[in-house]
Amino acid sequence: MKFSFTSLGCASALPSADRFPSAHVLNVHERLFLIDCGEGCQMLLRKWGYPFLKIDNIFISHLHGDHIFGIFGLLSTMSMMGRTSQLRIFAPAGFSEILSFFMDHFGEMLNYEIVHKSLISQDMDTIMEDRKIKISSFPLNHRVDCYGFRFDEKRPARNIHKALIDEYKLTLAEIASLKSGEDIVRENGQILENLSFTYLPYIPRSFAYCSDTAPFPGLTRFISGCDMIYHEATFGREMAETAHSTMHSTAEDAAMAANAAGATKLLIGHFSSRYKDPSILLDQAREIFPETYIAREGMTFDIPLLK
Amino acid sequence: MKFSFTSLGCASALPSADRFPSAHVLNVHERLFLIDCGEGCQMLLRKWGYPFLKIDNIFISHLHGDHIFGIFGLLSTMSMMGRTSQLRIFAPAGFSEILSFFMDHFGEMLNYEIVHKSLISQDMDTIMEDRKIKISSFPLNHRVDCYGFRFDEKRPARNIHKALIDEYKLTLAEIASLKSGEDIVRENGQILENLSFTYLPYIPRSFAYCSDTAPFPGLTRFISGCDMIYHEATFGREMAETAHSTMHSTAEDAAMAANAAGATKLLIGHFSSRYKDPSILLDQAREIFPETYIAREGMTFDIPLLK
Repeated sequence: MKFSFTSLGCASALPSADRFPSAHVLNVHERLFLIDCGEGCQMLLRKWGYPFLKIDNIFISHLHGDHIFGIFGLLSTMSMMGRTSQLRIFAPAGFSEILSFFMDHFGEMLNYEIVHKSLISQDMDTIMEDRKIKISSFPLNHRVDCYGFRFDEKRPARNIHKALIDEYKLTLAEIASLKSGEDIVRENGQILENLSFTYLPYIPRSFAYCSDTAPFPGLTRFISGCDMIYHEATFGREMAETAHSTMHSTAEDAAMAANAAGATKLLIGHFSSRYKDPSILLDQAREIFPETYIAREGMTFDIPLLK
Repeated sequence: MKFSFTSLGCASALPSADRFPSAHVLNVHERLFLIDCGEGCQMLLRKWGYPFLKIDNIFISHLHGDHIFGIFGLLSTMSMMGRTSQLRIFAPAGFSEILSFFMDHFGEMLNYEIVHKSLISQDMDTIMEDRKIKISSFPLNHRVDCYGFRFDEKRPARNIHKALIDEYKLTLAEIASLKSGEDIVRENGQILENLSFTYLPYIPRSFAYCSDTAPFPGLTRFISGCDMIYHEATFGREMAETAHSTMHSTAEDAAMAANAAGATKLLIGHFSSRYKDPSILLDQAREIFPETYIAREGMTFDIPLLK
């Protein structure tokens, strides 16, 4: 029952030999969600052992090169590896033109369907939902149309305390009712209260991705209560003016966002190339939010199951 | 006086974690020529220490993704690094549309000029020439419009044997005439023969790049007499049928091409992902052309100066 995040690249606009542009994998119950797709993404997916064909949904925050220049290579390779199932790409409206260009020039051999789901809402918006997860987009505050993503694990069915099944000789119908959350009133008037007979097997987990963005008050509502937050931290506090004029965040901004959201853990990335060693950014963030970590390439951060 | 070739990636269509798509650097007298630009090229240029701003000319063999998906990232990064000087890209005609797409969607901030020099000739064609080098394109035999490139060092000015300058009390005018290759007839009838007084400081060197191509007889004329040849070797002899039906070469084809051209050294690359270890391809090529080497990522092959 995994719920874990791995960054493949924590560079910002200028990548380096060992720091690739933005691309990340969220693993929810062994289903892989790709978040942003900077240049080199397909090589890094291979490097860290993520099978391409487990990716059916890609989330693109915005249409700057350092977040999408890996998409053409990935789409081509998926085809060459025999993909036939539909791929959905959640991206700002402008992605349609980019996808059309790709299909016109490189899509000849493609043997699967690519569906672009356009991000348009300027409020919290459920963009995908099934039995296990709800995924929402929300607007960020960048130079171009830019979105964050929130992944909420669905509340699992309640489990029944096993000892009570025998003790109360529960019927299959009664078990089904209890699992769905109902109380039971037996013919003899006996009441079996749901809360006494059942328990939540685990607390649903949640993760939010925020890149690229200048700080803005509305963010808190979108990411409130998330267990783990990825937030860009392009600059340190000494570059706050540059950060905000380019519509980015400092490490402190990221920490304050996590703090306001009541998060358990903060991952920072998207570092300016001027920070050869981003630990100075980590230190600044930890002064405000101690549970901050650097989203180092290939490092996986789990959200543990809590019961 | 370098004349050396470095491959940044020797994968074919399907890259792997440690084998990137086609991108190569030819260093001629510390001027860098980039040949093909597969995904990840900009990160690999940094990894192997090639300064982006020393690249003024890029050569694209053909418009398949594994040879050009790195171009958008490289062009963007060059701008962010402050490039202002013109960049020339030699590529098939269809590249114009790709460049237009890039400029429309990602070129807003670009502060340098990109000139696309269209490759069209179906014969040997001089596409660039100056005092030090002549660069030619020639057609290859692939599924799409595809070109090879030949780099010929220009013949250097002749040097004068120093001892003879004093012995014959050569004047500055006489030295200039001898350097330019003339014989001298002095007023007293004395003849100073150029070949006795001068020598070529080094023999001009040459390199040819051939990827992707099925073997064809006309190739020999284009690459004849090159010191070093890079030739694709996507498949081994057991896959010859696949190689030729997909318009590619086997390692043996590459070796025969080098043999026919009278080359000194052959570098092979563009290996199919089925060859985890390409040494089987090396062995097959060496049976025909012993001076064959694998163009391993980051390995530099010099053409030595011969006097």
